Order: sequence, then C-alpha cells, then structure tokens
Amino acid sequence: MSDLQGLMKEFEEYKARGLKLDLSRGKPSGDVLDLSNGMLDGLDTYLSEDGTDIRNYGVLAGLPECKRMFSDLLGVPAEQMILGGNSSLSHMYTVFGLLWNFGIGGSTPWVREANVKILCPVPGYDRHFALTEDFGAEMIPVPMTADGPDMNVVEKLAAEDASVKGIWCVPLYSNPEGVVYSEETVRRLARMKTADPHFRIFEDNAYGVHHIFEEHRVTNILTCAREAGNPDRVFYYFSTSKITFPGGGISLVTSSPANVKEVLAHIGKQTIGYDKITQMRTVKLFGGSADAIRAHMKNIAALLRPRFELVLKYLDSEFAENGIVRYRAPMGGYFVSIDVPDGCASRVVALAKEAGVVLTGAGATWPYGKDPRDSNIRIAPTYPTLGELDTTMRILCLCIRIAAAEKA
Amino acid sequence: MSDLQGLMKEFEEYKARGLKLDLSRGKPSGDVLDLSNGMLDGLDTYLSEDGTDIRNYGVLAGLPECKRMFSDLLGVPAEQMILGGNSSLSHMYTVFGLLWNFGIGGSTPWVREANVKILCPVPGYDRHFALTEDFGAEMIPVPMTADGPDMNVVEKLAAEDASVKGIWCVPLYSNPEGVVYSEETVRRLARMKTADPHFRIFEDNAYGVHHIFEEHRVTNILTCAREAGNPDRVFYYFSTSKITFPGGGISLVTSSPANVKEVLAHIGKQTIGYDKITQMRTVKLFGGSADAIRAHMKNIAALLRPRFELVLKYLDSEFAENGIVRYRAPMGGYFVSIDVPDGCASRVVALAKEAGVVLTGAGATWPYGKDPRDSNIRIAPTYPTLGELDTTMRILCLCIRIAAAEKA
Repeated sequence: MSDLQGLMKEFEEYKARGLKLDLSRGKPSGDVLDLSNGMLDGLDTYLSEDGTDIRNYGVLAGLPECKRMFSDLLGVPAEQMILGGNSSLSHMYTVFGLLWNFGIGGSTPWVREANVKILCPVPGYDRHFALTEDFGAEMIPVPMTADGPDMNVVEKLAAEDASVKGIWCVPLYSNPEGVVYSEETVRRLARMKTADPHFRIFEDNAYGVHHIFEEHRVTNILTCAREAGNPDRVFYYFSTSKITFPGGGISLVTSSPANVKEVLAHIGKQTIGYDKITQMRTVKLFGGSADAIRAHMKNIAALLRPRFELVLKYLDSEFAENGIVRYRAPMGGYFVSIDVPDGCASRVVALAKEAGVVLTGAGATWPYGKDPRDSNIRIAPTYPTLGELDTTMRILCLCIRIAAAEKA
Repeated sequence: MSDLQGLMKEFEEYKARGLKLDLSRGKPSGDVLDLSNGMLDGLDTYLSEDGTDIRNYGVLAGLPECKRMFSDLLGVPAEQMILGGNSSLSHMYTVFGLLWNFGIGGSTPWVREANVKILCPVPGYDRHFALTEDFGAEMIPVPMTADGPDMNVVEKLAAEDASVKGIWCVPLYSNPEGVVYSEETVRRLARMKTADPHFRIFEDNAYGVHHIFEEHRVTNILTCAREAGNPDRVFYYFSTSKITFPGGGISLVTSSPANVKEVLAHIGKQTIGYDKITQMRTVKLFGGSADAIRAHMKNIAALLRPRFELVLKYLDSEFAENGIVRYRAPMGGYFVSIDVPDGCASRVVALAKEAGVVLTGAGATWPYGKDPRDSNIRIAPTYPTLGELDTTMRILCLCIRIAAAEKA
C-alpha cells in the first residue's frame, strides 16, 4: 500500500464519522463570551458623567467616559474619537465612502478618478478586500514580511503612482499571520513620500489588546504621521467585538482633528448619535478602566492560548521536519496562517470539507479571492473547543499530507 | 403707548428672566423615556429562539423574533426586513448611498447622472434634506396638502423629467404637519408613471404607531406598489427611536425581495451583523408582542397629548380670530407646524432666542433651509414639561405678535 493509499484510508474513516467542524471564521467561543456576560446585566443609571440622558438623542461622537477609557487603552486622544455601532467595518465603509464620494481634506473624490488603487498586504483580511471591491477600487497585493508589509514595495508603489490612494493595515497581530509591524515599518508608512498627497492608511487595530502569548506593542502610527508632517494620512479603527460581544459591542474611528471634524459633519447627516446605552454598559463592565480591559484580555488569552498551542503543536510535529507546510507562529491575534505546497490550498480545503471540516475558502486572504500560488490557508482556532480543535487539526494535517502526496 | 410698545414691554420682562427653554427638536421627554426603562434591565438569555448565540457574530438581517414582532406591528413581511442599528437615518443614508454609487435593480448609479432631483414635500423633515444635500442631489419642493404631497405636482414632475429620481415621504403624521396621507395619495404614489422607471419612494414611517389623539392608519404603500406592478419602487423605514430610546433603539428597512437581497449583499460588506443584544432587549420589553407595543404607545400618547393640547390651546386662543397664524392641528406624530405672516418666521425665531426660547431654525422645514416665504415654524412640544411648555408658548405667541406688528 502506497503512502497515499494509507492516508486515504485514514481519510475515509474520518469521512464516515460525519463530523461537523469549523475552523473558518474568527469568532469567539462561548467560554470567551461568558467572560463578558456583565454586558447582559441591568444598567443602574441612564446619566452620563456630564449629566446627559443617554436614553435620548445626541452626543454624536460618543460618551466622554467611554472615549476616555479607550483613550487610556490605546493612547489616542479622546477629543479625536468617534464611537460607533457594533461594527468597526461600518466605520471603515463610511470613511471609504466619504473618500469615494466627497473627498476629505480637499482630496479629489475617488469616484472622479480614472483609477483608484488600494495596497493590500497579503495574506490579509477578506472583509477589507470585499469592502474595497464593493466600491470598485483596484486592489494591489503587497507581500507581508515578519515586520509588516514589504516597505520597499509599498514606498515604490506609493511614490511612483498617483492612482495609489491608500493601504489596509492590521498593525498588531495582523490578520491572518499574527505579525507585529516593526517600529521602522510604522515610521516608514507614516513618513513615506506619496505621489498622491492625500494617500490614506486604513489602520485597523482590531487586535490592539489581543495578546495571546507575550505582550507586544505597536508604534502609534497617528503620532508618527503627525510628527512626519502627514497628520491627515491615517484613519485608525478599533472595536470591542473581540473584547466583549461581536453582537453587541462598540467601535471607534480616530484620525487628525481636521479629518475627524470633516467625518463627523458627514456622520451627522447619517445619524443623530450612536447607541449610548451599549457605550455605557461597556464603561460599567470595566469600571471605566483601561487596566480592567487589559486584565480581561489576559483572561481571554488564558482561554485562547491552549487553542493556539494545540494548532502549533500539530503543525510543528507534522511539518517541522518535512517542510510541507510553511508558517509563522503568530505573535497574537486570532489566526494562524499556513502555506501549503503551491497549488494545494484549494485541494486541502475541498478535502477538509469532505471530511466535515469547514475552512476559510482558499484564496480568501488574497484580493478578489485569488491566491496566485494557491497555497495560503487561514486557520481560525478560537471558536471550537479544545476537543473539537484536536480532531479538526488531525483532519487538516491529514488533508495537507494527502494533497502534498497527490502533488508529488 | 402703541400696541407694539406694549408687546415689547412684556417681551423685555421675559428677557430679564434669563430663561432657557427649548422647542427645537423632536426629542422624547424624561417621563416618556421612563416608560421604556425595562430596556436597561438585565437580559436573562443570550439565545435567540432558533438557538443562535446573540452575543456572537452573524444574523445580518436581524433576529427572527424581532422581525416577526415588527411584521405583526407594521404589516410588512419579516422575510423582507433588515433590522439595523439605532438610527433609521443610517439605513436611509446607506440605501441612498447604494443608489448613488451602484444603483439597485439595474438602475444607473446616480453619481453617473447629469442631474439627480429628489422631490421634497414641504414643509418637511430637515434631516431628509440634509442627507440629500450631502450627496449633492437637487431638491425640488412639492407642496403638502391635507392629504399628503400635492399629487398633481408630484405626478407631473415624475412623469415629465427623467432626472426626478425619488421622493421623501412621511406618510403617517408627517413631519412637521402631522398630516396622514390619504389612501388615494398612497395609491397614486405607488402607481404613477415615472419618466425614470427606477423612481424611488423613501417611505419614512417614523411615526407609524405614534398616535396622539385618535388612531389613524395609512395605506400600506409596499402592497400598493406591488399591486401596481412597481414592487421595487419603495424603501420603507421604521425605528424604535420614539418607542423605546433614541439613544439605544433599533431601526428597520424593508422593500421588495429583490431590493432587499441586493441591499443585504452590500450591507454584508459593511458589517457582519447589527447589535442583536438590543434587538433581544426590545423583544423582551414587549414580550415579542405587537399589541404590547400598541399598548405602550397609548401610555406614551397619554403623556404627549396634554402637551399638544396646550400648544393648540394657545394657538387657538391667540390666533384663531385674527388669523395671524395659519396652522393645521396635527393628527398625531411629534410636531405642530405653523405659518406666521410671510417674512416673519426668521424674526420670530430671533426674538424667541433673545427671550431664551430655542426654536427650530426658520427655514429648516424647507430644502437648503430656505423657506421662500419665510413663514413656516416647526414646534416640537414633546420634550419640555407642561409648565415649561406653558411659559414657552406664551413667549412664542408674544414673539409672533411682535413680528406681525412690526411687519404691519
């Protein structure tokens, strides 16, 4: 019996079990959500610290105590913060839409440009790409390195082509590789010469406090951009989706005072104010304290770490020596990114599906869903239990070995 | 001493009191908000009726039990509903933005059109106008009648000019006049011939259950449009801002199945799902029952009715005989609309401000804030206490008499 035949026999055994397992989306598990069940508790006040009745209309940019808490947590000024609904993606869409239709700070509305190109570090986050594609902007892949996007490539593209309008960045624990942008990367992004003086950085700090192993920090790009004389370059996003509840959290966007003023003027045409009850619940859950959020994230990390360790254990034991799978151990965040042999990712995803394991679609980490080497797979280990994850990883590793053997 | 001198003497007395009163915005009062304080209570479950963990991602269109409750309340199909955040204005902005950038149902994106004209029944809602202006669409005023917009004007404009793309409607208790669209008006809107086959009706049913006096109903325009062969013409909006809390409610948009499918596809690029915790709280507050919402609205009406009666008492007693002020007693809703003598509205608002009473800006009920006759003033009596309202109305009537006397 050949190697492949042996593997297929094992595969058929898994298939026969009719499993339903899912490694596809970066969702928190029930035990992680339970840590925030205080969000479901009663609220003993409807007055903000400045006496505002939070039940009523108004306070477009958000409650002061909530903005202060996030300011302490992230080191960005409360005065320049706009809190939003439960989805930072909505804030991103809003700002992208404003740049598209109206421009900000005197920039030409992108809809009036012949070409709008957005740099997309790859592997990257499929929802950034889907948003960009919705507007019809062209996405230009830029390779990631262990220090963030390859800045030689980014600088060259931004400097030489005025139709390059912006870049998506997940600076801390990037999605999906869990890379931390180096200080040099951040500074180069902030100061680089751009052919379009209104070049924008969409800084999605989705995992800004989502340490899994040791605690990493990322250089504050807002400060760097200001110091480099490019204060209006950066729009910075954050949310509590993976701190409290994805289904009932709050988001924020911040930028330069000028940008925030202009964005707020447009947002004021869309709403009279976001949900302040949820803002207050978030403040109450953490006693208004950034340190309480940090402590809470340690509790979350304690639940997530074994899941990541299990994934890495399987990858190490099955592939460290044979080199079939290349991967970077993530420094934190929500995902593990692996590269299987070229041309094998789709096959692995298809095999896994047959055996009852849903993976993120092959190509999802690339613009237009097209991974030119068909090699990258994003593993989202946060949702399954450890037991499910163990079975899932056995199946995934088996599928990879099958696909690699077929290829060979 | 002339009449005017006597009035000014009284005015100076009010001025000296340094009052701070506000009739400007349609905000619920504290006693009305108190009726919904159950929204602040603890939530005893995080599972929806279909077992979904509402704390987590997903359920883009909203919880089934919440959609069913609104379906029962409004007589619109749950399957065609998209629940949103706390602001129906955001839903309006989103749909307007989709029509602007992408088109819906094959319509040409409005951004590609040389002219986009939107019909605006006047007096109307300033936030509809601000939203329209934000996109740079041209606003065409259409006079209101006691039965809704003047349909002879609407039909002519829509039939003859393909750049007329849509109309804003508040069909039940219109903002600000409290007019109820007649069945004939609704049917004509639904069936009228339009030069642009993709003409849109933005049906903002903001006051759909907000009866103050007797209970009026408005013909369901979604049904009429479908029956008339124009199923994709109408986008229908509703929210709980004035049922529960403006600062923590939920909104909805509904339309034809085809429109909803297309809108959802774009919304899926903006968010993974709206706040389901607030949806569940709303369901729990009313036990999932539309009848409970109707009973709740009667309790709200009992608190609002005396405020409206007080305003009307002042208007009747001060102006019924001399005809200085023309007004329609509202049939429900949130406002009283009055017309002071031509050229006097700005002066009345300025005088009132001097005496410590903030009114909605003169012209706010017209596109671009420009009331050509400078005569319409929107009174928002819902927020002040009865005592404050009494003083406020005395001052307002005085300011009107002064402005009228100055004019004469």
